[in-house]
Amino acid sequence: SPGLRFRLPFVIILFQAIFLTLFSLFVTYNEHTDAAAQTNETDHSQNELYEIFPLFQDIQVMIFIGFGFLMAFMKQYGFAGVAFNFLTANFAIQWALLVQGFFNHYYHGKIHIGIYNLINAEFACATVLISLGAVLGKVSPIQLLVLALFEIPIYVTTEWTISEYLKISDVGGSMVLHVFACYFGMSVTRVLYRPGLKDGHSKEKSSYQSDLLAMMGTIFLWIFWPSFNSALANRGDDQHRAVIHTYIALSSCTLTTFALTSMVEKKGKINMALIENATLAGGVAVGTSVDMMVTPGGAFILGCIASVVCTLGFKYLTPFLAKHLKIQDQCGIHNLHGIPGIVGAIGGIITILLSSEDTYGLSLYETFPHRAPAHDDPKLSEMVRLLPVLKAGAGRSASEQALYQAATLGVSIGASVLGGFLTGLVLKLPILAQLPDEHCFDDEPYFEVPELEEKELNQIKISSENCEEKLRLNEN
Amino acid sequence: SPGLRFRLPFVIILFQAIFLTLFSLFVTYNEHTDAAAQTNETDHSQNELYEIFPLFQDIQVMIFIGFGFLMAFMKQYGFAGVAFNFLTANFAIQWALLVQGFFNHYYHGKIHIGIYNLINAEFACATVLISLGAVLGKVSPIQLLVLALFEIPIYVTTEWTISEYLKISDVGGSMVLHVFACYFGMSVTRVLYRPGLKDGHSKEKSSYQSDLLAMMGTIFLWIFWPSFNSALANRGDDQHRAVIHTYIALSSCTLTTFALTSMVEKKGKINMALIENATLAGGVAVGTSVDMMVTPGGAFILGCIASVVCTLGFKYLTPFLAKHLKIQDQCGIHNLHGIPGIVGAIGGIITILLSSEDTYGLSLYETFPHRAPAHDDPKLSEMVRLLPVLKAGAGRSASEQALYQAATLGVSIGASVLGGFLTGLVLKLPILAQLPDEHCFDDEPYFEVPELEEKELNQIKISSENCEEKLRLNEN
Amino acid sequence: SPGLRFRLPFVIILFQAIFLTLFSLFVTYNEHTDAAAQTNETDHSQNELYEIFPLFQDIQVMIFIGFGFLMAFMKQYGFAGVAFNFLTANFAIQWALLVQGFFNHYYHGKIHIGIYNLINAEFACATVLISLGAVLGKVSPIQLLVLALFEIPIYVTTEWTISEYLKISDVGGSMVLHVFACYFGMSVTRVLYRPGLKDGHSKEKSSYQSDLLAMMGTIFLWIFWPSFNSALANRGDDQHRAVIHTYIALSSCTLTTFALTSMVEKKGKINMALIENATLAGGVAVGTSVDMMVTPGGAFILGCIASVVCTLGFKYLTPFLAKHLKIQDQCGIHNLHGIPGIVGAIGGIITILLSSEDTYGLSLYETFPHRAPAHDDPKLSEMVRLLPVLKAGAGRSASEQALYQAATLGVSIGASVLGGFLTGLVLKLPILAQLPDEHCFDDEPYFEVPELEEKELNQIKISSENCEEKLRLNEN
Repeated sequence: SPGLRFRLPFVIILFQAIFLTLFSLFVTYNEHTDAAAQTNETDHSQNELYEIFPLFQDIQVMIFIGFGFLMAFMKQYGFAGVAFNFLTANFAIQWALLVQGFFNHYYHGKIHIGIYNLINAEFACATVLISLGAVLGKVSPIQLLVLALFEIPIYVTTEWTISEYLKISDVGGSMVLHVFACYFGMSVTRVLYRPGLKDGHSKEKSSYQSDLLAMMGTIFLWIFWPSFNSALANRGDDQHRAVIHTYIALSSCTLTTFALTSMVEKKGKINMALIENATLAGGVAVGTSVDMMVTPGGAFILGCIASVVCTLGFKYLTPFLAKHLKIQDQCGIHNLHGIPGIVGAIGGIITILLSSEDTYGLSLYETFPHRAPAHDDPKLSEMVRLLPVLKAGAGRSASEQALYQAATLGVSIGASVLGGFLTGLVLKLPILAQLPDEHCFDDEPYFEVPELEEKELNQIKISSENCEEKLRLNEN
Repeated sequence: SPGLRFRLPFVIILFQAIFLTLFSLFVTYNEHTDAAAQTNETDHSQNELYEIFPLFQDIQVMIFIGFGFLMAFMKQYGFAGVAFNFLTANFAIQWALLVQGFFNHYYHGKIHIGIYNLINAEFACATVLISLGAVLGKVSPIQLLVLALFEIPIYVTTEWTISEYLKISDVGGSMVLHVFACYFGMSVTRVLYRPGLKDGHSKEKSSYQSDLLAMMGTIFLWIFWPSFNSALANRGDDQHRAVIHTYIALSSCTLTTFALTSMVEKKGKINMALIENATLAGGVAVGTSVDMMVTPGGAFILGCIASVVCTLGFKYLTPFLAKHLKIQDQCGIHNLHGIPGIVGAIGGIITILLSSEDTYGLSLYETFPHRAPAHDDPKLSEMVRLLPVLKAGAGRSASEQALYQAATLGVSIGASVLGGFLTGLVLKLPILAQLPDEHCFDDEPYFEVPELEEKELNQIKISSENCEEKLRLNEN
Repeated sequence: SPGLRFRLPFVIILFQAIFLTLFSLFVTYNEHTDAAAQTNETDHSQNELYEIFPLFQDIQVMIFIGFGFLMAFMKQYGFAGVAFNFLTANFAIQWALLVQGFFNHYYHGKIHIGIYNLINAEFACATVLISLGAVLGKVSPIQLLVLALFEIPIYVTTEWTISEYLKISDVGGSMVLHVFACYFGMSVTRVLYRPGLKDGHSKEKSSYQSDLLAMMGTIFLWIFWPSFNSALANRGDDQHRAVIHTYIALSSCTLTTFALTSMVEKKGKINMALIENATLAGGVAVGTSVDMMVTPGGAFILGCIASVVCTLGFKYLTPFLAKHLKIQDQCGIHNLHGIPGIVGAIGGIITILLSSEDTYGLSLYETFPHRAPAHDDPKLSEMVRLLPVLKAGAGRSASEQALYQAATLGVSIGASVLGGFLTGLVLKLPILAQLPDEHCFDDEPYFEVPELEEKELNQIKISSENCEEKLRLNEN
């Protein structure tokens, strides 16, 4: 396929050249990475790096091992699953460093970076990898890079708008990240609808080994999800709660999924694809309220609900969407990220409506900075006397904050549907090496694949059937 | 199998409902997770979370990846190995959070939780997963949940009794965790004895791929064992020693195992099953003395001894136990956890007998708090002047402490044998979906298994043999 | 093979006995692990352990999972790849603890150890594992142990000489570790040249599953490389920069590799072996300058260059070296460690030539301690007033420092070529169980291998071909 030979290197080299230029011109160190910014009074053990480095590494494992091997679940699409994830994630992270840098870390004519930039870039990258799930196996690597090229700035803009104007709480990214990524991907796959795949595809299946490796991907995602959900929470009790809640939600979600998969599958057998996906839904559903006082019981129930909607989604909604709305959601991201993300948004709203100084003390205004009294409110100075770190907020009530949260869900869905639609149109351009249906879910067009035992097997099968046939003829 | 379709979901949903109710009614935050407990004087960077979070994540990898893939070593029991480990571990952790909570963190009518509760629950969970090793492949998932249901409270009670009344040192859990888990599992598998398996089972074998994935499980357990052994040690030099000793013991154990496997196996070939198991025995054997001044050489020799007993156990003891005592120890937990645990206990006793203020300084009374002078001893106040953090102990001598350690080993074995026996009787109840022998070591009864290449292969083999046979007849 | 049965256990047991004796006689605790060294004033949270433990665990994953599974990339050499890595690494680490201990941590008649000794030993171990790559599949485990036995002291001596006399900067080890390990391995494989393999070997290939597991090894190496490159940097901004630069270099290297593999391979298909190796070259190439102010753009371009030289090396240089210089470099370590290491050395020299107080402030003399003014220089006391932690250096200019760096590269290459040559001669001794060519790249001589499906397959294939043949004869 000439598409690959010339176009993929061309696209990568072009963008590497552009990114290199931008990095060279604009990217420099921030006060935690710049040697010249260290003074006599610098306490090196307080460098920002140490706050977050273990979480950063956990999130790296999620991005490259977790997503990578989970996407390698198909029998003949394992190389592509893990390698295209590797390719796309790196591209997305570089691009996000630049785009987020221009939005959030640009001053004195430079983007100033440190470890938090990398983490934020990985969050942006996660949106691309989630969206990718909708079209896995059906797009060329060039299309994947273009997907990242468009999704990153649309995501960053949306997220910036939300944090600038709506000022909401969503540290685990249920709304801003998962819902956005899901509906972006759904939109893209709708535009790229393939009628030829409406009755399935012969290669669209897993093998024993591919399921085991995918399960490893799942478990690494599962294990490190507490790091993901807590990375951007306030240090201290907020981050601590985020870890505990994520863990509890994932745990109840996992058990519920084992129960449900036995119930909905024929003969009561456990479906590994469900275990590989639905056990993670709890981490999404607890994302918005993860640093709040949602209570351990609240996290538990969010995990159960996430499992129910996700499992039923895989069983009933995905086929429905494919058939009636022409949305072919390959990995079922709508079940794992979309609906659980909406559950997470609602969970956040309820938690906020129930939140008050009674349960939070003055920490209420740290967890929800916009609920702190405004600058001119006399209550502020009173509070500051008790808790000097407190800053003026917008004086929002619980229900006002809840309204902003709901508005955010709307903005996230709107921006992602629209952004995904436009991106999908671009991806349809013939120059991007769209795959014919028969080459979907197959490593062969892209990779030098070691001779598969299976191929040999088929050959032998045919020759042995020939033998039998001839013998039968001989006998007659 | 109707057992699975109806009974597994029923059992899971029933207990999830019960646990959810208990979580909602009783589980709340502790002072490190409660927003309202943070004050003006709280230094968020001192939150307990940061002390232990990296170790917590390491232990998570051990529980879910390490145990999971090590238990997936059988050719046709890979899905079950990793998925039932995932299921059982989650169930056990939730249940342990509650049971340990009622024992150790219950006040003002609530269980107060934070990250240390999760770690302690994972230790409790580890006992269940170890015991599971004895019956792997021979019990239904419902039986596994019931096993956890019984083992967790029996373990927690035993551990509570020991820490309350015997006050011994065993931070790596050689006695309290490994020995307990082993004899519990041995007792269970004795009760569940299957005469039909006494000559082995056709599916009870590994494949090339399953051995490689099991090896990955082993190596993750191996790598993170220093985190496991040090997690509950005192902060500072104690924890530091625990890391170093575990590492050295594992290392000498690994090398010795490579030597021994070549010696005991026919043609001097290395047996992967031994490498997957015996290389870990050093971590068990150093568990009791891991934070003491056992010396690097002492840790080294404990690792060597652990390897010898473990390797010889696999080769000679396991078949003996199966044949003469009707104890079918599927994964050889007696070799990996039982005997090395006893070695660990003895190592601890010897180390304690050799310990004195000469080698420890006043730290002696921090590592062994019960050897500190009692409240009314005048020496106490003298010491407190030198080391103000010191607390009154029980004034035990080295040999007294050693006696208590020995008593603990006895209590641990006694409680586990008895507890395992009772649990085994419950597991025999017909309602728990006991498997017929022929379905052992097989994913098929529980999972939707992708068509195995092997099956096809067998079919072709038969057809090709038919061909040859007919040709031979033709020729005659 | 009697070689294995008697000689491997003999060699291991002999050296375990020697190491155990040395550990018992000489190895003791340092001030962070010795209970008696803790006083009333000790702040346990400042124990050295906590500075570095997460990095230590990351590096462990690299050594045992990363290297292990990357070396398991061959179809029938998976057990050996991962198990011999496990064996050799443990042997090398124990030996390095002793040798480095005598060089660097020996006083009062004892070697004093703590967590940093383990990390340094793992760095030494990494050199052995890299060198091993050159002869992978062609040497017996006994030869591997002897390789480690020789390489460790030669490496430690070289490194000690460099740090004592040349006093250069190379925290990621581009020159001291990667270049050394590479040319040591190249020298060894040159001496062990096998004419019988000059046209390849039938078993020297990967399978679908082995490539996926190797890819997992690669990705774990990739993820944790920032920990490796930053572990020995100064705490604070230096370590922070090391993380950022490594990440950027790996990222640009990965993207460039995807572009190049499509370009150089036939039909534009991606070669997994290249992805498994060349994506890591960026981490090597940025190693010398990783803690310097190389700038994000500089790291980016080093990653790109590394990818280019590595990919072209695999494609053109490796076959050339094998054919014309009789250097059979099995894993292509010259491409991944040799040339990128030299690129790293040059990158370091350029970065140093461009470094000045303008960009570093006084931190210049912390990152490059030997550029600080000498004891008798009046500038020193002036600087110390501004930055009291500053210590007297050698008053080197930028270009003097650059010269020392260049000299180090020369010393590293010289010592490694010579050391490798001598070690190679020893490895040729017949007593070390040299393998015949036909047993290369095969687990069979060393491991009890589960019956491979493939073998069966071949049998069936032959029988079915026989059938067809006979039928054809019958018909004529």
